[in-house]
Amino acid sequence: MSDCIFCRIVAGDIPAKVAYEDDDILAFEDISPKAPVHILLIPKRHFATLNDPEGSDAPLLGKMMLKAAELAGERRVAEAGYRVLVNTNPQGGQEVFHLHMHLLGGRQMVGMG
Amino acid sequence: MSDCIFCRIVAGDIPAKVAYEDDDILAFEDISPKAPVHILLIPKRHFATLNDPEGSDAPLLGKMMLKAAELAGERRVAEAGYRVLVNTNPQGGQEVFHLHMHLLGGRQMVGMG
Repeated sequence: MSDCIFCRIVAGDIPAKVAYEDDDILAFEDISPKAPVHILLIPKRHFATLNDPEGSDAPLLGKMMLKAAELAGERRVAEAGYRVLVNTNPQGGQEVFHLHMHLLGGRQMVGMG
Repeated sequence: MSDCIFCRIVAGDIPAKVAYEDDDILAFEDISPKAPVHILLIPKRHFATLNDPEGSDAPLLGKMMLKAAELAGERRVAEAGYRVLVNTNPQGGQEVFHLHMHLLGGRQMVGMG
């Protein structure tokens, strides 16, 4: 069994409130939300950080961004505004070492963190 | 002449400190940096916000993310850590309405903004 908590969510070993799922990506509610809308989007395939994907993974990463925008629309924050971010390694604020994208919306985002 | 300041940077009408350029994307130093490394990456094609690209633009968006990671490596912040973010519309903190990605590094990122 994987030590990676997000791989275990993908496998169904750990429950999550799923917002979207397909063969490549999974989106679920952050359990410690920092905004009224706070969804994590992950590739099902394990990459520890954004340093790890290769050029051939560009369509996958772009699909995650477009899905984040689509979920912002579903949650009705797309027009008011939202933030999409990826933290890499400790100085970036990364806490779980499975590449993930935060979608944040429903309040005014301030500064860059 | 375009009213879009980033289209004018692409066209060479407004100077910028270019970090990377190819046929599809341009990366340049933010003129008001919020971290020791603060580079903006934009698609040369104009999209106002992340709400505007379509499914066929996924490879372009993914390429921007991978280029951000590569620039983090060149600036020697990839291992310590960095943040990549896209702000959409006013509540997201977007100020220039030409889709752009912020690469921030060289200091501890705190919270999500």
